[in-house]
Amino acid sequence: MKVVFAPDSYKGSLSSIQVAEVMEKAFHSVIPSVNTIVKPMADGGEGTLEVFSASVNHEKVFFSCKGPLGEKRESWYVKLNDHQAVIEGAEIAGLPLVPTEKRNPDHTTSYGIGQAITHALDEGCTNIMVAIGGSSTNDGGLGMLQALGMKTYDEKGKETGMYGKDLHALKRVDVSELDSRLKDVTIRVASDVDNPLTGPRGASQIYGPQKGATEQQVYAYDHALDHYGKLLEEELDKNIMDTPGAGAAGGLGFAFLTIGAQLESGAQLIGEAIQLKESFRDADYIITGEGQSDEQTLYGKAPGYVAELAKENQTPVLLLSGSLGANYGALNERFTSCFSIAPGPVSLEDCLKNAEEYLFETSRQIARLITKQ
Amino acid sequence: MKVVFAPDSYKGSLSSIQVAEVMEKAFHSVIPSVNTIVKPMADGGEGTLEVFSASVNHEKVFFSCKGPLGEKRESWYVKLNDHQAVIEGAEIAGLPLVPTEKRNPDHTTSYGIGQAITHALDEGCTNIMVAIGGSSTNDGGLGMLQALGMKTYDEKGKETGMYGKDLHALKRVDVSELDSRLKDVTIRVASDVDNPLTGPRGASQIYGPQKGATEQQVYAYDHALDHYGKLLEEELDKNIMDTPGAGAAGGLGFAFLTIGAQLESGAQLIGEAIQLKESFRDADYIITGEGQSDEQTLYGKAPGYVAELAKENQTPVLLLSGSLGANYGALNERFTSCFSIAPGPVSLEDCLKNAEEYLFETSRQIARLITKQ
Repeated sequence: MKVVFAPDSYKGSLSSIQVAEVMEKAFHSVIPSVNTIVKPMADGGEGTLEVFSASVNHEKVFFSCKGPLGEKRESWYVKLNDHQAVIEGAEIAGLPLVPTEKRNPDHTTSYGIGQAITHALDEGCTNIMVAIGGSSTNDGGLGMLQALGMKTYDEKGKETGMYGKDLHALKRVDVSELDSRLKDVTIRVASDVDNPLTGPRGASQIYGPQKGATEQQVYAYDHALDHYGKLLEEELDKNIMDTPGAGAAGGLGFAFLTIGAQLESGAQLIGEAIQLKESFRDADYIITGEGQSDEQTLYGKAPGYVAELAKENQTPVLLLSGSLGANYGALNERFTSCFSIAPGPVSLEDCLKNAEEYLFETSRQIARLITKQ
Repeated sequence: MKVVFAPDSYKGSLSSIQVAEVMEKAFHSVIPSVNTIVKPMADGGEGTLEVFSASVNHEKVFFSCKGPLGEKRESWYVKLNDHQAVIEGAEIAGLPLVPTEKRNPDHTTSYGIGQAITHALDEGCTNIMVAIGGSSTNDGGLGMLQALGMKTYDEKGKETGMYGKDLHALKRVDVSELDSRLKDVTIRVASDVDNPLTGPRGASQIYGPQKGATEQQVYAYDHALDHYGKLLEEELDKNIMDTPGAGAAGGLGFAFLTIGAQLESGAQLIGEAIQLKESFRDADYIITGEGQSDEQTLYGKAPGYVAELAKENQTPVLLLSGSLGANYGALNERFTSCFSIAPGPVSLEDCLKNAEEYLFETSRQIARLITKQ
């Protein structure tokens, strides 16, 4: 028997690697001869790079860059082979890297992400994936594009800075010196939101407050990004401000669109990078899961993607989650069976605290059932 | 595929019949061609007779008797065939039949249970099962034995009454006029407690308070039952006051021992009566469950008995319960797999209120898993 474990994390208790390993341990305890493949998943946010260490050959590449506040930062990305790199934005300019009291879009920049791309290009990578979730910035990717060679000027023709606040003074952009290698590489961006750059569903209004923007800043940034976006659209003769995902990660999505990147589902991108589909070959069961599942799980979330991917082989896919929302029967559209790890009426606190034990036991019960022990 | 559903009740939410029927409905919704057998279980307490209506041929026999307070009561028992009767003590002298403010062992009697036995004997029954759980009495079976012909006298030689309070005046018992037919019939008593008649673990001290006995009464009854027990032991030349179960149902267990009845596990007796073992033949799965499961489930409880019984056929037995106690992995000693119906961290109130929905969904997930849908 061959079983693949491809869960997302149980937010608040276990990383996706831990979840997969607990499941694997439980199956081994019941079926010593079972062949297992551990393929922890991620959705493009914080912790994306971690999953590679668990499941595919890769090389960690360390480099120096500017952190979210412009400070010097040692960061890393991953090379899957000579040509393929995976960059996690949250490792470079993520919100957790900024102390709560300093969270303010005026003072954060995506500059380091551009430096990571430059570094990967220098390494000869031609296929670059970037997970942009969990960013601390609302700079529309201004910093990143500057790191890649874009010049920006204020009304007096003076070059402007790389922080969010510098968007407000921006009057002209010059992309003629953008790194020319960008034209010859494929950049794919993992993004799970479909917000446009600006407007009521735009980056500033929807995600600004969680990055420390005041109400006043939210509107100022919505205005500034609108101006910035139009300057770039005009310069590039592109119409991309309303492209779904342009508003992801404080407008980083938009910046990636300006350099020809594709915005894709995080789960899908990561699934491809860890060669998930290949691992499903000849699998008897695929086990996935996440902290909380509901009907949304079917749309773009890691377990939903896992189930979709397994369809072709008609392999049973089981969902083991911390909790199953109302009407979870709807999940059977894609999942063979869905189980919660809760052993009865317990508190959320209890469930988070004992998640490992509960997951282990529930996994054991399932292993026993499918082998009729 | 053939599946047998043999759950106990989910106390506080669903009767065992409801549990079995919800499970059956869920399996049918997933596997339209499944053959199902519904065998709701009971443990000898309240609701025992109900389970017969769900699973075996039987005849309801109505009769008049004295209720727990000596009032006239219309009650019923069940005949499984011409010779076999099942009597539920709780339908005749059960605690729920006595209004809370009237619960007092001084004024309750097991007389009606003796009348039920007499009625069954009149009907020609030679095999009588009596479920004695849930009684309101602490009369040591005084009333029941009187109904069957025993005479009791006070110190003045005057005949005494049938209520608990009459135990205190008792000085002599005469069993010479006990119904002679009792010698030729088999009486089996479903009892799940192993308490002796008297002492610190006896009927009065352990179960007296829940039947309305004050602290003073508890000790008076312990004393009175000791005297009563010794009188009967001497009269019958038997040594049965300390027999495990003598203290069941306010000493009814003891009274049954005086007339040669056997005290047995409730689950086992009922399992035999509903021909549970026969239903397991060729079953692919057996599903049981109860409100709360823990290691105790293995010892004498209905699901534990179901699993024990299924061992011989090596049929997988699944346990679906409202909640699984700590260390529930120990249950795998007998159960193939154990699942809680809780869909995540929910309150007990939520779980009781939505037990039917949660049970239905969990049963569906299991049906899907075993058929790999």
